[in-house]
Amino acid sequence: MRIGAIEAGGTKFVCGIGNENGEILERVSFPTERPEVTLANVIAYFRDKEVEAIGIGSFGPIDIDPSSPTYGYVTTTPKPGWGNYPFLPELRKAFDVPFGWDTDVNAAALGEATWGAAAGLDSCLYYTIGTGVGVGVYAEGKLVHGLVHPEGGHVLTRRHPEDTYEGFCPYHGDCLEGMAAGPALEGRWKVKGSELGVDHKAWEIEAFYIGQAVAGAVLLMSPKRVILGGGVMHQMQLFPLIREQVRKNLNGYVSAEAVLAGIDAYIVPPGLGDNAGLSGSLALGLRALEASAK
Amino acid sequence: MRIGAIEAGGTKFVCGIGNENGEILERVSFPTERPEVTLANVIAYFRDKEVEAIGIGSFGPIDIDPSSPTYGYVTTTPKPGWGNYPFLPELRKAFDVPFGWDTDVNAAALGEATWGAAAGLDSCLYYTIGTGVGVGVYAEGKLVHGLVHPEGGHVLTRRHPEDTYEGFCPYHGDCLEGMAAGPALEGRWKVKGSELGVDHKAWEIEAFYIGQAVAGAVLLMSPKRVILGGGVMHQMQLFPLIREQVRKNLNGYVSAEAVLAGIDAYIVPPGLGDNAGLSGSLALGLRALEASAK
Repeated sequence: MRIGAIEAGGTKFVCGIGNENGEILERVSFPTERPEVTLANVIAYFRDKEVEAIGIGSFGPIDIDPSSPTYGYVTTTPKPGWGNYPFLPELRKAFDVPFGWDTDVNAAALGEATWGAAAGLDSCLYYTIGTGVGVGVYAEGKLVHGLVHPEGGHVLTRRHPEDTYEGFCPYHGDCLEGMAAGPALEGRWKVKGSELGVDHKAWEIEAFYIGQAVAGAVLLMSPKRVILGGGVMHQMQLFPLIREQVRKNLNGYVSAEAVLAGIDAYIVPPGLGDNAGLSGSLALGLRALEASAK
Repeated sequence: MRIGAIEAGGTKFVCGIGNENGEILERVSFPTERPEVTLANVIAYFRDKEVEAIGIGSFGPIDIDPSSPTYGYVTTTPKPGWGNYPFLPELRKAFDVPFGWDTDVNAAALGEATWGAAAGLDSCLYYTIGTGVGVGVYAEGKLVHGLVHPEGGHVLTRRHPEDTYEGFCPYHGDCLEGMAAGPALEGRWKVKGSELGVDHKAWEIEAFYIGQAVAGAVLLMSPKRVILGGGVMHQMQLFPLIREQVRKNLNGYVSAEAVLAGIDAYIVPPGLGDNAGLSGSLALGLRALEASAK
């Protein structure tokens, strides 16, 4: 089986071919330019690949409501040329195969639930904590879309008592993204996060915010696993600190083993590592193929 | 079609018969006593009713994981006799029909999504704000269970700047339930909520907490409707105050019409009114019957 996968990021696109076992057989990468240039590259890559379906995990915001007249569009991005751009419709003109289409974080959640850190589970949350914070939501065996799509990176958290940083989110100031994404680390400490020592106070404060948001999401959604990815989470010292904050915030109220003694296996890094994005898109393509066969 | 419905509350049980149109044909109610007494009443009621299925929306915590050996049990409640009690297994001994089994708030969410304020939508959140705060989660056409079940009443919120009340939640102190359930109103103002005038400062503070939690849930889940029920929400002056808080917290980030100009139709009271619980249990029974026919 040959399935196409497109990890459509705001700075680069990765295209690849994979199979039903989640194996990536080949891939290419190119910078994200104006859409007509970028899509020409995408189409040229897949032209002779004979794929049976294509999955796309896209930067956003995007329209993922199948009943919407602008389904498949990138919507309100300030990225030149991409605002209100018919991304999926343009690709459909080029390839007559089933398409999977979702947000990059939902794709990553599905990839992890198919072949990664949540393999075999019917629910998980996937956080990416990098230049921003995004959350993919997989529940009861389905990716959650709803009204638009989950935007759990912007929930409010309580302020750490020793933190005076104002937050950088243009919409909410000190929401989770505003306080815990990469730019917040740099804004608060005046150096890049990657230059802070592993014992620096920064990580306690970082874990304070992430742990609060994760605890809230565990209460509301009761996911079977929580996966934390993205550049900031390459700081592996964050994991035990975040687990401790989640435990402290839940305070025994959720009596499941998974969030008590088992928390080390509950809040985890992506199982697919740097392949999470492309593998997720592959999983979207696979689901689209399965749905078309029904 | 005759479907049985059990609204199993901590203080009273309501049993009834309904049909596929959500019509309640008859009902009885009795106080919740020890389980053997209560279940004898339930069984006596349904004995000659010839129902095709029975749906149960139960007080909790309960085990709703079909793969668990204690599926269908009430688990850790302090209620005399009900701790670790095999509620559903006992009923199965008495009636050989398909059973639906879920939390009371999930049942209410399903009832509202079937015949009530979210009819025709494939997602909604149902909050009950009364002696406690519970949240039912319906997403992508399914009730969300996950690890245990949603407990969104216990999320943390930021403190209102003029509020010094410590919160009454034994687990979290000043979580949403600790600050906004009925006992918090009484703890803060020293009179019952129902005795406070509609212009009292209490409602602004109440809406501050509920609005924050709802905004967070809208970000994480992107539900197509948010339904607010329970005793506290009989104070209808809360609705415009809560909508305003949600709008303020989202601050335009979610650009869907529903949460902007359309917010009056997005955050709403239960469409089924005082029937929400029993109708939800009826909807659970109907789904169980449909699933058994497949």
